Amino acid sequence: MAFTSKLRSIQQRRATLLCIGLDPDLSKIPPHLQTLPQPILEFNRRIIEATHDLVCAYKLNLAFYEALGEVGWRTVKETLAAIPSDIITIGDAKRGDIGNTSVMYAKSLFDDFGFDAVTVNPYMGFDSVEPFIRDERRGAFILALTSNPGAKDFEYLNVKNKPLYEHVIAKTKRWNVKDNCGLVVGATRTTALKRIRSLAPEMPLLIPGVGAQGGDLTAAVRFGCDRNGELVLITSSRSVLYASRGTDFAAAARGAALDLRNDIARIREKYF
Amino acid sequence: MAFTSKLRSIQQRRATLLCIGLDPDLSKIPPHLQTLPQPILEFNRRIIEATHDLVCAYKLNLAFYEALGEVGWRTVKETLAAIPSDIITIGDAKRGDIGNTSVMYAKSLFDDFGFDAVTVNPYMGFDSVEPFIRDERRGAFILALTSNPGAKDFEYLNVKNKPLYEHVIAKTKRWNVKDNCGLVVGATRTTALKRIRSLAPEMPLLIPGVGAQGGDLTAAVRFGCDRNGELVLITSSRSVLYASRGTDFAAAARGAALDLRNDIARIREKYF
Repeated sequence: MAFTSKLRSIQQRRATLLCIGLDPDLSKIPPHLQTLPQPILEFNRRIIEATHDLVCAYKLNLAFYEALGEVGWRTVKETLAAIPSDIITIGDAKRGDIGNTSVMYAKSLFDDFGFDAVTVNPYMGFDSVEPFIRDERRGAFILALTSNPGAKDFEYLNVKNKPLYEHVIAKTKRWNVKDNCGLVVGATRTTALKRIRSLAPEMPLLIPGVGAQGGDLTAAVRFGCDRNGELVLITSSRSVLYASRGTDFAAAARGAALDLRNDIARIREKYF
Repeated sequence: MAFTSKLRSIQQRRATLLCIGLDPDLSKIPPHLQTLPQPILEFNRRIIEATHDLVCAYKLNLAFYEALGEVGWRTVKETLAAIPSDIITIGDAKRGDIGNTSVMYAKSLFDDFGFDAVTVNPYMGFDSVEPFIRDERRGAFILALTSNPGAKDFEYLNVKNKPLYEHVIAKTKRWNVKDNCGLVVGATRTTALKRIRSLAPEMPLLIPGVGAQGGDLTAAVRFGCDRNGELVLITSSRSVLYASRGTDFAAAARGAALDLRNDIARIREKYF
């Protein structure tokens, strides 16, 4: 089954659009975990245990694991092993290089780690993206318009009366012959989101930045969903992971995730 | 000392502009190494041993190590340990993410691995690049115009009568307050190279694609060097690493590297 169809069916079955970003920062996780041999792994396991019935996907930001050194590699694998198999896993790696190198990154992320999908940087063009979309079952979310301040440096540049990111979207649509391409659109970009959804009515949108980055949840759901109120991944990391730094961190994370899932459901019900 | 000054002084002392790309592919290294416990590490060590007097830098393409799984991490560290300390090491990782995430990537590449410089993807703008250029001693080569066919998809797009990559160059110049930014320009882009050097007369240029990718060596040296005939890194990977697949592979790699270094010196003498 093509990635986009798989995502849709998982969202329908689990009745949630929530994606939790597992971006654990050693300096922010509860102090009582820090003495364990693998504190990040333990943290992730407890977060997954407490939230897995509320999400359709988990997104692992590879940077946070690479920063741990060699143990980070194992932590990614063991974290993935703790995620139920009917939940989408996204390797947020933002890779992209010449063809023969992207092949190696795809091998690592899909074959070695076993992620269902990855994030990809489009700057280097088609042959840098193609190895990530060769297998229809695996998805690639291409960076379009990101949530950070630096988005203004290049992503908004005017090319033939359209911002650069719209050219990225147009190319991605052409590349999407296997129905496994998606787009990354920051939750802080509410004005653009409506237009982006109209340009790509049938592509999954990965929307990070709800919560700590201040993205507007209502707009993200209302304008991010496709016409069936699906195919959007509302992604939150810090506001769920660090809801509490005490021994109740997992319950607090569940509380934050539950609130988010319910808020999303309410907004969805109102507009779809 | 700022990265650019350090690179310049190493190039002067070692009298070479050659950078060898250590991108070892398990399927391409000599068969007699493949039964060893760490074939890639052994391959790299033998290549370094045979070529270190001919280069000013080694560039490790992280994708090739990540594709090895967990052992890849250790292989990067142990390869770096085998490189003499007066040679520049470049982590060719093409990372780039929102600020708090790029901080993590910089931590991994500079603090954990100890690379002198990295390659960075500019698409997400300033806050995605800044963590890599915070320490003046560490350098960042920003992707400008790459050697691959996909470069035509976005890098050449016309923005205010200039290709996108010239906007990347203009921004990089403004970001280069610590004299530690460089640019990646593919060796296949000879027409553009002359102009790029005129736009950034004092920035190091990392030029991959000589050899297997078919880049023109004369143009790369002639138009890539700064006015002193320096600050360019002529980078070759496959044509050096795989000069032979027999037991003589290290000697053959030395032969190919020696030819390249000498060719570069000859071109440099002619034009500078």
